[in-house]
Amino acid sequence: MSGEQELGITESKEHATGEWYAEVVQKAGLADYAPMGGFIVTRPRGYAIWEHIQDHLDGWFKDTGVDNAYFPLFIPESYLEKEKDVVEGFDPEVAWVTHGGHDELEERLAVRPTSESIIAPFMAQWTRSHRDLPMRLNQWCSVVRWEATETKPFFRTKEFLWQEGHTAHAEADGAWDETMTRLDQYARLYEDVMAMPPLKGRKPEHDKFPGAHTTTTIETLMPDGKSVQAATSHYLGTSFAEAFDITYADEDEEDNVAHTTSWGISWRAMGALIMTHSDDQGLVLPPAVAPTQVVVVPIWQEDTKDDVIEYAADLAAELEAGGVRVDLDDREHRNPGFKYNEHELNGVPLRIEVGPHEVDDEEATLVHRPDGDQETVDREGIAETTQDHLDTVHAKLYASAEETLDGEIREAESREEILGTIGQHGGYVKAGWCGDEACEEPIKDAIAAEIVMVPLDRDEEPIHDECAICGEPSEETAYFAKSY
Amino acid sequence: MSGEQELGITESKEHATGEWYAEVVQKAGLADYAPMGGFIVTRPRGYAIWEHIQDHLDGWFKDTGVDNAYFPLFIPESYLEKEKDVVEGFDPEVAWVTHGGHDELEERLAVRPTSESIIAPFMAQWTRSHRDLPMRLNQWCSVVRWEATETKPFFRTKEFLWQEGHTAHAEADGAWDETMTRLDQYARLYEDVMAMPPLKGRKPEHDKFPGAHTTTTIETLMPDGKSVQAATSHYLGTSFAEAFDITYADEDEEDNVAHTTSWGISWRAMGALIMTHSDDQGLVLPPAVAPTQVVVVPIWQEDTKDDVIEYAADLAAELEAGGVRVDLDDREHRNPGFKYNEHELNGVPLRIEVGPHEVDDEEATLVHRPDGDQETVDREGIAETTQDHLDTVHAKLYASAEETLDGEIREAESREEILGTIGQHGGYVKAGWCGDEACEEPIKDAIAAEIVMVPLDRDEEPIHDECAICGEPSEETAYFAKSY
Repeated sequence: MSGEQELGITESKEHATGEWYAEVVQKAGLADYAPMGGFIVTRPRGYAIWEHIQDHLDGWFKDTGVDNAYFPLFIPESYLEKEKDVVEGFDPEVAWVTHGGHDELEERLAVRPTSESIIAPFMAQWTRSHRDLPMRLNQWCSVVRWEATETKPFFRTKEFLWQEGHTAHAEADGAWDETMTRLDQYARLYEDVMAMPPLKGRKPEHDKFPGAHTTTTIETLMPDGKSVQAATSHYLGTSFAEAFDITYADEDEEDNVAHTTSWGISWRAMGALIMTHSDDQGLVLPPAVAPTQVVVVPIWQEDTKDDVIEYAADLAAELEAGGVRVDLDDREHRNPGFKYNEHELNGVPLRIEVGPHEVDDEEATLVHRPDGDQETVDREGIAETTQDHLDTVHAKLYASAEETLDGEIREAESREEILGTIGQHGGYVKAGWCGDEACEEPIKDAIAAEIVMVPLDRDEEPIHDECAICGEPSEETAYFAKSY
Repeated sequence: MSGEQELGITESKEHATGEWYAEVVQKAGLADYAPMGGFIVTRPRGYAIWEHIQDHLDGWFKDTGVDNAYFPLFIPESYLEKEKDVVEGFDPEVAWVTHGGHDELEERLAVRPTSESIIAPFMAQWTRSHRDLPMRLNQWCSVVRWEATETKPFFRTKEFLWQEGHTAHAEADGAWDETMTRLDQYARLYEDVMAMPPLKGRKPEHDKFPGAHTTTTIETLMPDGKSVQAATSHYLGTSFAEAFDITYADEDEEDNVAHTTSWGISWRAMGALIMTHSDDQGLVLPPAVAPTQVVVVPIWQEDTKDDVIEYAADLAAELEAGGVRVDLDDREHRNPGFKYNEHELNGVPLRIEVGPHEVDDEEATLVHRPDGDQETVDREGIAETTQDHLDTVHAKLYASAEETLDGEIREAESREEILGTIGQHGGYVKAGWCGDEACEEPIKDAIAAEIVMVPLDRDEEPIHDECAICGEPSEETAYFAKSY
């Protein structure tokens, strides 16, 4: 059984989360490292997860008035510079194209790190009248940010896949509703598709997207106690519209400045998904994003082989007709134990075992990933039964992640308590905060934790009356956590 | 009615095809020119056409064993150089990234012009045993080629969207079947989705994809008499596998070199589509790729307004429920004539007019784009009737394009006849050819026409016994044409 050892994950999720994560990503065939540091190759099983995420979100976007478009990969340096009108000290770490063929370019071109500066001028051009608004554009693409950090597939890569939505509205209300609509769709993605409980909040003023009026965020908790910024939705106010001249004539032919938003989610969502659910046997996926939702494994002896394989093949065909993404694993050169391990490593949510007993009794045995719960069920109505079990697998993953999260949100009333609690347990610590960035510093300096969010509702009463750091009256509740 | 004049296409398809095309693309809202020469911005209506093309092809690819993946945007110069082992004199005109942030890179990175040189090394790594084959990978992405030519949206742009498929097979037969499967899928796309009759053929030896054993091509005829290379599918033999060491252990554990293929279609397909069907009123689209398939236009007087709009809205809702992509145009500030012109400009294949008569008689009037054929039909069963009419619109577009093509394939038996026929009529001229590139030269030099394809079947008898140029025995039938 040397094969089983090759398959095995050798690192421990609990004791070496980073190494374990990297091993799961590679051994489950999700991604490999590219020859250039900071870049990865996304293999079919990994890319299929991204496609399922895309399909869900893209459908919701289109149902709510968003049009997809495609803007150039490159942004002229002078266009990027324009963001300096909005963002003081803007100095993007980007990849620069300086030569085309054998010739040096007259102006350097940045590989897009985000597309505000190329999209906004076109929005300005296309927005004439209030009838052109709201204008909602989205693009699915890759972006490049030249940050020098250790490569961590999906979490930290110089090139990453994402979508970026950019919208313009006549009024602040419309733009704010847009911001919240997208935040809610991201939250729904985490809950209903990825089986992860999202925290919805706002970034503190000093950590907003540069130029934004408000940055809203989805935060999710990782098993090592760190928070991941898992999607963001920005209400930009009129700052970008003013800088790029996005104006419209209202019903009285008066010129007005538009209100804009931008919102995005990257393949970091996949990283958070993999890290949250997977275990020491390998990848664990919720059924909605699993490339293969069900694997049917026939278990035969020589005398039962034909019957068992035929039964298993029929069953798989019925599931496929019922809309289940199913594989039949009738490989002859692998034994059932090897197959079980391999499909567990690859994150197949449900295994269906079929042996001579199942054939005789017209049944099938369903085994859940990751908890191994199993049930023998009637062959009749198997597509519906399987769908129920897939729903149960999702619900169990969600419940488990939610239980973890609930236990990892604590409170603190002093600097020492914040440091001690995060130092000991990780997770989130809620504390009163005066709103001054300076009061984040001692926490950042001591344990590299920061304020990852504050409540969405600006009128929400702070959890405590006093700032846990300085003792001045607190303005809001800060969620401190270490962060990816 | 000044609005109508704004909408109008001012150039003539017949007399100024290039200017007319550029005007249609911009006025129908498909694309705009980016600030950098050679780049365009693809607007929602244009991108939606590309999405429909993608959806059809991607489904067929997946049904026939292809997995999507994603490889890095950048390719290290040393990797690109590796293609010199396959392709003599390989000197790609690419965009070079030389700086990341403020630092000069140790090795320049090419923005991918095509991904053979980064995909092949990974295929080599992932291919161990015959059980790993066939391996079929595809990616949808953008590529950049730094060719200095005038920008022509979708036809000639430095950055373009495409898909590139890369496969490896144990045997030549499997790789050849793969090559033909993809060529047939491209042909099906043109016929069934884009309503264009494709010619299937092979590129002459001297015009193959560098390193390929065989380059197969789809050629389509443009209204100005030129041919467009509308998709290609390459059987690469073992040349790439040898250069990049894509080998596998067969059933006897013997090492073998794999056979590979690559195949791609770009947004040039959209350019060919737009140019083929559109007319002096604007864009014409076959229903399968039209962002809006049907527009319902209510026509009311003040006293009939409520009834007509309600009837029209119900009708539109029923169509939408029936799976038709439908818009209701109940704008108050535009009259029906303006709306008709606008939807014609934008390429909506079917207009449904609803006035008081239609309401009274429970009917609807269907008007086809582009020929203006109209029919008043029963309101009952409108979704099905509409689908029938959309099918008819597709069939008429196809028939028209096919009739044009049939009339544009001529024969010639001498150099003078080739030159005269193409010079006078454009289109394709079939002629006997000895197989020597030298015999293409005089045609190229005189009228910039070339051999765009030869028959797929290598055993097909040449149309004439003698080469039309040199008089030596002819080896195959050459299709001469001017080309995009």
